[in-house]
Amino acid sequence: MILINGECKRQIEISDRGFQYGDGLFETIEVKNGKPVFFDRHLTRLNTGCNRLHIPVPDPELLTAEVFSLCKDSDQAVLKLIVTRGSGGRGYRQPDPIQPTRVLSLHPYPDYPLAHKEQGIAARFCDTRLGLNPLLAGIKHMNRLEQILARAEWNDTAIQEGIMLDINDHIIEGTMTNLFYVKDSSVHTSLLTHAGIFGIMRGIIMEILSDNEIPISERLFNKDEFLSADEIFVSNSIIGIWPVNQIENSYFPVGPITKQLQSCLERFKSEAEASRP
Amino acid sequence: MILINGECKRQIEISDRGFQYGDGLFETIEVKNGKPVFFDRHLTRLNTGCNRLHIPVPDPELLTAEVFSLCKDSDQAVLKLIVTRGSGGRGYRQPDPIQPTRVLSLHPYPDYPLAHKEQGIAARFCDTRLGLNPLLAGIKHMNRLEQILARAEWNDTAIQEGIMLDINDHIIEGTMTNLFYVKDSSVHTSLLTHAGIFGIMRGIIMEILSDNEIPISERLFNKDEFLSADEIFVSNSIIGIWPVNQIENSYFPVGPITKQLQSCLERFKSEAEASRP
Repeated sequence: MILINGECKRQIEISDRGFQYGDGLFETIEVKNGKPVFFDRHLTRLNTGCNRLHIPVPDPELLTAEVFSLCKDSDQAVLKLIVTRGSGGRGYRQPDPIQPTRVLSLHPYPDYPLAHKEQGIAARFCDTRLGLNPLLAGIKHMNRLEQILARAEWNDTAIQEGIMLDINDHIIEGTMTNLFYVKDSSVHTSLLTHAGIFGIMRGIIMEILSDNEIPISERLFNKDEFLSADEIFVSNSIIGIWPVNQIENSYFPVGPITKQLQSCLERFKSEAEASRP
Repeated sequence: MILINGECKRQIEISDRGFQYGDGLFETIEVKNGKPVFFDRHLTRLNTGCNRLHIPVPDPELLTAEVFSLCKDSDQAVLKLIVTRGSGGRGYRQPDPIQPTRVLSLHPYPDYPLAHKEQGIAARFCDTRLGLNPLLAGIKHMNRLEQILARAEWNDTAIQEGIMLDINDHIIEGTMTNLFYVKDSSVHTSLLTHAGIFGIMRGIIMEILSDNEIPISERLFNKDEFLSADEIFVSNSIIGIWPVNQIENSYFPVGPITKQLQSCLERFKSEAEASRP
């Protein structure tokens, strides 16, 4: 099911800047029991992205009403929410006034085996490198060729994620996840000032770590440091937390901090759900 | 007028990867006397881009037929040709098989004053910096947020172009043009290994320079070197060559090499037109 600016339709004008230039932002949101999970956080990130790209923020009440209306009959699904700069002329100059386009689409919840969460997944390093772009780093914009080229590198269904380095050999993120590693009871995650996306789940995990007084650092690290980890895990809004048990020829246990975070996250989600209107 | 996969329509499925992720390429082509100018060169660059992004190259005979059919009644226009990875599912993984989408649209030729070509234009430096991305540098892909943010920096109609630097302070290109400067009878243009687009007109100018035994170097240079130029000009497929007579507080003459190149380009275009089927 798809809603474009509140109307049930499946097609968009080719003059939409989302199509012409990837000129927009998106959110990928878990839907559970008829409601979008952590919707307030997704809305906040969307607003931050709109401000960074100078796209007028869609009316939050209208957007919220549309999202809840689309989700209400779904037990479990994935909602993709897109906001673009709207239709414009040929050329990079933005339309004046900007009338943003809202596209909401509901997708089946992916059929991930429970083993991914319990026993962990296998990952690989991608050859595709992330460029350095402080201007666009962090936000979930629609210029995603790097992730597409990285994800196209493998077809082996035994490998669930590809790990991306930047052009300076720093480990940044997975193609669809953020990365964390544990070393000597401290947690490390990549600094995303030059590349990568601030995942909603990444933010939640950092809050949980802080609440539990587990040291967390955001920093740039290389492959050797990463592979010397005691535990590794990846996160996003749909999968939650998956331990990584293998990266090429290196093996990792599903460790105590990863397990603790998984159970804290369950509790965190239940509490967020209970406190929701 | 718009042709999508050969059909007259104006709308595209939102599942098209061009809309979801800017997952495609485009060409902006001058149409003159009912024909696309330098079409063989645009087709070659499109094919290079398709190969770099692993998008199957559209059948050149079909594409050529569609392009010529769309252009045949236009004295002067701009043709935008888009090729995307086609429709796919949610997520970065590419569809299998990939069935590319072709979108051809005809636009009015911009009403540029003759003075831009004869007396030159004013330009400014943009604050928006180009990221470094060797993977995507050179090709005319649809991930264009950097150019959009740069072009949004000014509204002063007296300024025709914005000059973009990369995050390492190298001058790279204009928002919609390639840049050249002349110093001591040698011509310099930016090296585009980490950012920027290989313009069709840039390639033609480099051939003309070489044919005329005027030294040309592709290299990285900074603002000071650039502003110490004897002549500066910008180029693209629609404008041809425009001298730059002012950048902020620096002034430049419309110099002899720029004028020579403009007249060589006229001849080059006439010869290319005459030799076309």
